[in-house]
Amino acid sequence: MEKHPDFQHDLETPTLERQRQQANKRCQLLWDQQFYGLHDYAAAPHLSLAMAQGMFSYESSFSIKYSLSNGMFPSTILSLGTERLAKYAAKIANNEISGAFALTEMSHGTNTRGMRTRATYDAKTREFIIHTPDFEAAKCWVGNLGKTCTHAIVYAQLYVPDDTYQGLNAFLVPIRNERTLLSYPGVTVGDLGEKVGLNGIDNGFVMFNEYRIPGENLLSKTGDIDEKGNYVSKVKDKRKLLGASLSSLSAGRVNICSLAYVALSKAITIATRYSACRKQFGPEDSSEEWPVIEYQSQQYRLIPHLATAYALRIFTMWIGTANVDLTFRTFMGEDTSSKGMEIHAVSSAAKPVCSWAARDGIQECREACGGHGYLKVAGLGELRNDNDANCTYEGENNTLIQQASNWLISLRRNGANFNDVSPMNTVTFLQDMDSILRTRATERNVEQVLQPDNLLKALNWLVAYQLDTTVRRFESLKKEGQDAFETRNNIQVFNAQQLSIVYAQRTIYYIFHRFLDTAAPSNERNVLRKLLSFYGADLITKHIGIFYQGGYFEDRAHADLYQQGILDLLPVLKNEAVSLVDAIAPTDFVLNSPLGMSDGNIYQHLQAAIVQAPGVFERPHWWRDVTYKEFLQKSKM
Amino acid sequence: MEKHPDFQHDLETPTLERQRQQANKRCQLLWDQQFYGLHDYAAAPHLSLAMAQGMFSYESSFSIKYSLSNGMFPSTILSLGTERLAKYAAKIANNEISGAFALTEMSHGTNTRGMRTRATYDAKTREFIIHTPDFEAAKCWVGNLGKTCTHAIVYAQLYVPDDTYQGLNAFLVPIRNERTLLSYPGVTVGDLGEKVGLNGIDNGFVMFNEYRIPGENLLSKTGDIDEKGNYVSKVKDKRKLLGASLSSLSAGRVNICSLAYVALSKAITIATRYSACRKQFGPEDSSEEWPVIEYQSQQYRLIPHLATAYALRIFTMWIGTANVDLTFRTFMGEDTSSKGMEIHAVSSAAKPVCSWAARDGIQECREACGGHGYLKVAGLGELRNDNDANCTYEGENNTLIQQASNWLISLRRNGANFNDVSPMNTVTFLQDMDSILRTRATERNVEQVLQPDNLLKALNWLVAYQLDTTVRRFESLKKEGQDAFETRNNIQVFNAQQLSIVYAQRTIYYIFHRFLDTAAPSNERNVLRKLLSFYGADLITKHIGIFYQGGYFEDRAHADLYQQGILDLLPVLKNEAVSLVDAIAPTDFVLNSPLGMSDGNIYQHLQAAIVQAPGVFERPHWWRDVTYKEFLQKSKM
Repeated sequence: MEKHPDFQHDLETPTLERQRQQANKRCQLLWDQQFYGLHDYAAAPHLSLAMAQGMFSYESSFSIKYSLSNGMFPSTILSLGTERLAKYAAKIANNEISGAFALTEMSHGTNTRGMRTRATYDAKTREFIIHTPDFEAAKCWVGNLGKTCTHAIVYAQLYVPDDTYQGLNAFLVPIRNERTLLSYPGVTVGDLGEKVGLNGIDNGFVMFNEYRIPGENLLSKTGDIDEKGNYVSKVKDKRKLLGASLSSLSAGRVNICSLAYVALSKAITIATRYSACRKQFGPEDSSEEWPVIEYQSQQYRLIPHLATAYALRIFTMWIGTANVDLTFRTFMGEDTSSKGMEIHAVSSAAKPVCSWAARDGIQECREACGGHGYLKVAGLGELRNDNDANCTYEGENNTLIQQASNWLISLRRNGANFNDVSPMNTVTFLQDMDSILRTRATERNVEQVLQPDNLLKALNWLVAYQLDTTVRRFESLKKEGQDAFETRNNIQVFNAQQLSIVYAQRTIYYIFHRFLDTAAPSNERNVLRKLLSFYGADLITKHIGIFYQGGYFEDRAHADLYQQGILDLLPVLKNEAVSLVDAIAPTDFVLNSPLGMSDGNIYQHLQAAIVQAPGVFERPHWWRDVTYKEFLQKSKM
Repeated sequence: MEKHPDFQHDLETPTLERQRQQANKRCQLLWDQQFYGLHDYAAAPHLSLAMAQGMFSYESSFSIKYSLSNGMFPSTILSLGTERLAKYAAKIANNEISGAFALTEMSHGTNTRGMRTRATYDAKTREFIIHTPDFEAAKCWVGNLGKTCTHAIVYAQLYVPDDTYQGLNAFLVPIRNERTLLSYPGVTVGDLGEKVGLNGIDNGFVMFNEYRIPGENLLSKTGDIDEKGNYVSKVKDKRKLLGASLSSLSAGRVNICSLAYVALSKAITIATRYSACRKQFGPEDSSEEWPVIEYQSQQYRLIPHLATAYALRIFTMWIGTANVDLTFRTFMGEDTSSKGMEIHAVSSAAKPVCSWAARDGIQECREACGGHGYLKVAGLGELRNDNDANCTYEGENNTLIQQASNWLISLRRNGANFNDVSPMNTVTFLQDMDSILRTRATERNVEQVLQPDNLLKALNWLVAYQLDTTVRRFESLKKEGQDAFETRNNIQVFNAQQLSIVYAQRTIYYIFHRFLDTAAPSNERNVLRKLLSFYGADLITKHIGIFYQGGYFEDRAHADLYQQGILDLLPVLKNEAVSLVDAIAPTDFVLNSPLGMSDGNIYQHLQAAIVQAPGVFERPHWWRDVTYKEFLQKSKM
């Protein structure tokens, strides 16, 4: 990338049009390199994670655009379609067509049952008639649909003759001519316009007017239209199907965890390096100023997010590998329903927790860099604006966390064996839930509190307690006569929402902890263990109220120990902070921030960036508006 | 504005150049109207707040640009300068010149003592020689300096003959020719370039190369150069001077509280109206879908920020009025040192709390509007990007809160009489601090907990406890042998920082409470009292840990009462939410968001906004890159 002109960075935000053009070109260049294709996925699946995180590091728009067309589109065809449509996956692999995935409608996102795009089967012509009743049913937010895709997978409510409803189905729908890129008659397709971020991606909307597509374009793994025009379900082993469909849904969320990790790691790299170089004030008897990272308040702004970045790095590798493994096993015909369900739940809780962690971390890093962090060239604004989408797509965070809490609640209510349902070990500890609920904080000093095992013990209690109280609230609302819909809605605040969040946080901590347990002894591991302790203590201080409400802390002073642990670790980890970010930072070229260059010459890089911006010393062409304003036409307001 | 072409909204983000031009033109148009000038300030000072909030509502860049040149520049000349320079304030009032305020340097913001721009007095020519030693000493972040100002107030370290240092002083410095707008020889002035937000403001940087300005251009209220070339201090009544200088520093922070309130009120208006119209899911036995505002989880996303918006509205009016009053009294020669000090402290704590509240509220509103909230036309991205600056300028938030905690700590340590030091009543309650520290939560049910007086009692305890523990920590670090510098740094996390925050939050609550106490009975007051209860309970649940750590909550179940109070109030306030935002919302024209229009037709407005964007249905001019990519030059990466 560093050697190629089309991957060089702009000094100013390009126009919307230009950002789209760039993203498209970068996708083509990446494809052209054939670094990693569908065939490599079989041979070296774990490299798909490295590939994805590498792409994400450079810039989000082009890399997401690429993964939508070259990942999501063909993998949906292969998982929900049959051999009949495999040629389209091959065409994508050959870069002959470009694809999009159209599910969301203007007035329905989360509630897929409420979708109103319709596909009616015409038995005479063996075609489906795709129709959008009105603008509210327009497919929207579809990446690549705005300007560039030739085909889209479109979800529509299927009706077969005699108006029999057959549920939401996916169809392969030609959108634009493969050569002229003009849309077909019956297809009104447009661009959603400027967004808060990710403007390289051409998100679009489309409305179909009695638009006919061949009958073979139904993705027919689960059911198909027979000779007589009837819909025939093909599902025999529902469990295998469940694994497959959960795995394809989870993939997007797993990827977003990686995107969030990458964004956070870039932000914390910039802010940590800047804080190590930026000096301000100093001891009263000295003319020397201190780097701002020497101040306790600045350390507490950075170190929590640095610890989170490491935790997410390890977690995203773990869940990414697990999801690849799941996809393979499902493909090989194994019964993956348990693992599929668990990864569905953990990714539904973790995608919100990771994207929120990045949101909060990037924001703190922006503020921690002061005014210079507000410069566009610093890069923090773009990281924030791009990461913001991670909180919304592939399941809006607040809605998505309900998936995880619903699973946990039903396990507990049904007296499930937590060992059986948890091949990934995220809830096996709850097998002892009743005894965990009786545990209490017994640590009596800071050293005990910071022991990774003791921190895990506290986090185990936190999840168990939150699950227990949520289930109790659930039962009590049911007893009051609320139906399932009301009950689910009315246990969210303070209960189910927190349950999902602490479940994800405990899982991330647990994976970090296990990673270090199995790592070979080294100086690096010693530092990472301190980072782990910090991460755990920081999580716990953020839920202090629950620890008291639930009685885990019995002593007024107990929380003080965790806070003191954090205060003790801050200066220790401060000394390691630059090395820690150096170990996870991308290259200077990729990071692309004068505040975060690895040589630490922040002012030299800032100067170079500022004085070379276009027109920096120029008098504006409208200068007469400033100094001859008395001649401006006095047009009254 | 609605009638004038230059105040019409763009459909796409204009270029940087165009945003600058627009902001400049809008400033001229506003000036031309003479709605409110320096003379009106004397006659109807309270209208300055209405004027400011009205301007801020429309758009931040032009209104801040206007207030920098037409407010901050002349008021600094009048408060720090003498009659000698008053003509420049008059020239600003006549719109003949445009001004800027240059304090921050590239490598020094908060630490003004570290600044390195130098002013050397040449007794022979009676001139000051302004010099910037290097790029790190360049004045930067100066609004209006990038492209438009003709004059700047520049802070420089003053040296008189024999190299005697006389401290940081302010100078009126000509930057650009008043007619050609070209910079003068010896002045290298440029634009800081694109920022995360506020791009209508031309923030600039400047370096001076042995640049000579007349001796009369020193702002000489506190001291001047005499005939012999010596610096003579003119300060007699230091207390009056303190009031004046604190008042002029506080004005910026007070204004930022208003900016933050306006941004938050716009965001919550958009998200509340959208949530009342957007439907998703519904009871299982019904085909009707529910507006998302009917869901508990959505209510808890909106109502806390709606309550905060009301609290900030009342608070910003109160502190704005107090600051205007202070300015007048100081101008009339009263001893305003106590009030000046208190407003300095409360604004130093409140500016961070208000800007963070807006930051968090805007973000939640963005997410609460789902994908459509991520559209640029929704307006939430711009509100976030513009408000972001409020966390940094006029005192970086984390640094600024130290001003308030330092004041509170010194009052407590010195055994001050809290009645005497608090003409604004923000700390008079601490006169009983020791008895407040002994209070405990005695409420036994939700109704008692939600009583506004009881909530105030809890918040009073919170401030007293946080002050007490911070002072104890301070004393214990001193006893360990840490010097003043170290002690101040090492009491920040969990102590002094939280102290300032809860002091500001308690003040905001107190002012809201007092406002309702003195309001005439009405249905509106009844609703606002519920909103006040919600606001108080929400503040308390956010500090639950401290209430347990400090022993105010003695019972495991005590926090549950506050949480239950919130859950009880959510559906009640949900019914009032649309009316509450309607009462504080700007007009649809000013709000300018298809998601937040007062008629509630979100999809019609969305459709109109999306399909009328430029080029929405157009094939991109680079379409061949998509469909003829095999002919693209294969330039290897």
